[in-house]
Amino acid sequence: MLKTPPFPTQDLCLARWTSGMNRSVLRQMLAVVARPGILSFAGGLPAPEMFPAADYGCALNQVLTADSGALQYGPPFAPLKRHIVDLMTRRGVTCSEEQVFITTGAQQGLAVLTRLLLDPGGEAILEEIVYTGVQQAVSPYQPRILPIDTNLYTGLNVDAVANYLGQGHRPAFLYAIPEAHNPLGVSMSLAKRQQLVELAARYGLPLIEDDPYGFLRYEGKLLPPLRALNADWVFYLGSFSKILAPALRLGWLVAPADLVPKLTVIKEMEDLESSQLTQRAVAAYLDTGHLPGHIERLCAEYGRRRDAMLSALERYFPVEACWTHPSNGMFIWVELPPHINTADLLETAVTQEQVAFIPGHAFALPGHARHNCLRLNFSNCTPDRIEDGIRRLSNVIQLTIDNC
Amino acid sequence: MLKTPPFPTQDLCLARWTSGMNRSVLRQMLAVVARPGILSFAGGLPAPEMFPAADYGCALNQVLTADSGALQYGPPFAPLKRHIVDLMTRRGVTCSEEQVFITTGAQQGLAVLTRLLLDPGGEAILEEIVYTGVQQAVSPYQPRILPIDTNLYTGLNVDAVANYLGQGHRPAFLYAIPEAHNPLGVSMSLAKRQQLVELAARYGLPLIEDDPYGFLRYEGKLLPPLRALNADWVFYLGSFSKILAPALRLGWLVAPADLVPKLTVIKEMEDLESSQLTQRAVAAYLDTGHLPGHIERLCAEYGRRRDAMLSALERYFPVEACWTHPSNGMFIWVELPPHINTADLLETAVTQEQVAFIPGHAFALPGHARHNCLRLNFSNCTPDRIEDGIRRLSNVIQLTIDNC
Repeated sequence: MLKTPPFPTQDLCLARWTSGMNRSVLRQMLAVVARPGILSFAGGLPAPEMFPAADYGCALNQVLTADSGALQYGPPFAPLKRHIVDLMTRRGVTCSEEQVFITTGAQQGLAVLTRLLLDPGGEAILEEIVYTGVQQAVSPYQPRILPIDTNLYTGLNVDAVANYLGQGHRPAFLYAIPEAHNPLGVSMSLAKRQQLVELAARYGLPLIEDDPYGFLRYEGKLLPPLRALNADWVFYLGSFSKILAPALRLGWLVAPADLVPKLTVIKEMEDLESSQLTQRAVAAYLDTGHLPGHIERLCAEYGRRRDAMLSALERYFPVEACWTHPSNGMFIWVELPPHINTADLLETAVTQEQVAFIPGHAFALPGHARHNCLRLNFSNCTPDRIEDGIRRLSNVIQLTIDNC
Repeated sequence: MLKTPPFPTQDLCLARWTSGMNRSVLRQMLAVVARPGILSFAGGLPAPEMFPAADYGCALNQVLTADSGALQYGPPFAPLKRHIVDLMTRRGVTCSEEQVFITTGAQQGLAVLTRLLLDPGGEAILEEIVYTGVQQAVSPYQPRILPIDTNLYTGLNVDAVANYLGQGHRPAFLYAIPEAHNPLGVSMSLAKRQQLVELAARYGLPLIEDDPYGFLRYEGKLLPPLRALNADWVFYLGSFSKILAPALRLGWLVAPADLVPKLTVIKEMEDLESSQLTQRAVAAYLDTGHLPGHIERLCAEYGRRRDAMLSALERYFPVEACWTHPSNGMFIWVELPPHINTADLLETAVTQEQVAFIPGHAFALPGHARHNCLRLNFSNCTPDRIEDGIRRLSNVIQLTIDNC
């Protein structure tokens, strides 16, 4: 055996896909604007003052005192699955406990499904502007992305999906947020939902339906999720992050029951199992029956905040700007005049007015950035601060327009 | 648009690797033997009566009451990283907070490292008998496994590693459990640890050191973990599952600081982040200074249980049997006479004596099963029940020997 040299003689060799790996632009920006004194519409954060901390603390205490299995390894907690079946009924979805698969947050559901469905170099259909978590989930597979555009009133372009399928493409899946799209704030029309599941069934296209905001509705009629329209081709991703709290890191999938054993093996690879304590405490919280009232309070408060932001945009933003009017969720998407670059705007806004947002390009597939757009979050500020922040942001926009 | 047919016209197409996917034999067996009335040495479960449930409940309450960030999204919790740096000192490892990476349990650390290091179809060095979690973690990559054998007194065969490297193999990593191997119960000799890290540095071989049992030591001198011998080529996996509780689903990596941004991106793909509540509650528990005393109590009790099992094996098992004498951890590995098949033995043991263990083949790489071996867990039964269970198991073994 030779003597060890003082420093490595070799460089560490990483998996090939990591050479193209990028830190999420969104996450980098969130880190930049997370400074004290910044009024931020940037994050996707729920309102912490609305968290049911006391109730959840009671549930934790009850479970820790009464239940010796609460801190141990264990199988998915059946009473939680029963509660999730009931919750799904509130979303208009009929499913069985055998179709419910507990995950460590919806992002894990997405990662597990990607591993189940996507081959390295395979194809997937994504919107040009789409939640960054799905872009991250697919990136190790270096897939060929089939991009589709999104109408800001009716949702993703189903005709474009039909075209790909008609041309012979057989992608591993299509990812959609039919309710309160992140970042666009649009909900898919019923006609498009029906057309999309028809295409899915006809061509054998798995649909991943991400529904973190489906319970947060502020106006209008509840439309059926894709999963309510088709049980064979739709994988539904649910989450407790927005209706209870993100720090639970608890979510669920609704999937065909015959795939649950495979999903289980994949989840074991990832993190063995989700926390028994969290599963049991959330089930104990749900046992109290407090969730429906809590969701009502969330909808009332977030609805007020949305209204405050829409009013402030109307009052302060230039006439050349337009924006989405979300009926639910947490985000508004704004299009400014085409000569305004929102990446530059953010810098000015943070420096001069201590107000932050996320430039639209953070959500774009490579090559699909639109530089005059931005995302605003309305769930994490009180109506007063929203009014003040939108006024300050409009000052910066007006200044930019005047300088052009 | 055509009318949707009543049933899918296409079969769901899964990623190719899933066709060779197997449910973990270990997990299947654990499900089979988890019947009421079975005295089980099968699982890898810590003793639930030792969980610090009251102390952890206090920590949770404190954090939920005092800390508005406890239920929100957030970055890795810096005070927890500081505690982990201190914990590592107790394991003889010097590291900085910048090298500590929080994970949702050690299995996630393993999954994240695999994604960082292993290409599809790449090579990895594994022991022929090895923790099933690593076999699961690599399986989607369909790797070429370079198998090495393990000496039951000194640990994995370092010469075999040198041979592979000398022949020109450059595997993505070698996985090792130097302290209290699962399932073998052996700890690597100091000489082998030194030789292994020398090889790693010389050939640029990343070592993944899994150390869930390193804090649970019942006799003898503490040997340095691989990470204490080399900071460049060793990725250390730590876990709170065995020293606090598995349901926390909290662990950590110690890795080169310049890789932490890449690890962060991979973790975001998997589950965005680990629970803020759990991170803060564990940090609050560690603030109390109760952990060292708790680990002492665990070592005293698990040491008694190990002694009880070793004595009972000595007293009851046939002279043809031999077994490992673990200085720490949770497992003893038993070799029975070569004509005994432990898979058959398990069936008889469960049926006739209501006692369970895990047959050795559950841990074997394909083609490396040894049918006369078994793994016994001693952490999850009181000394009385251990004595009783080993006696009952010996009855079944004696019967099998007599019938041959």
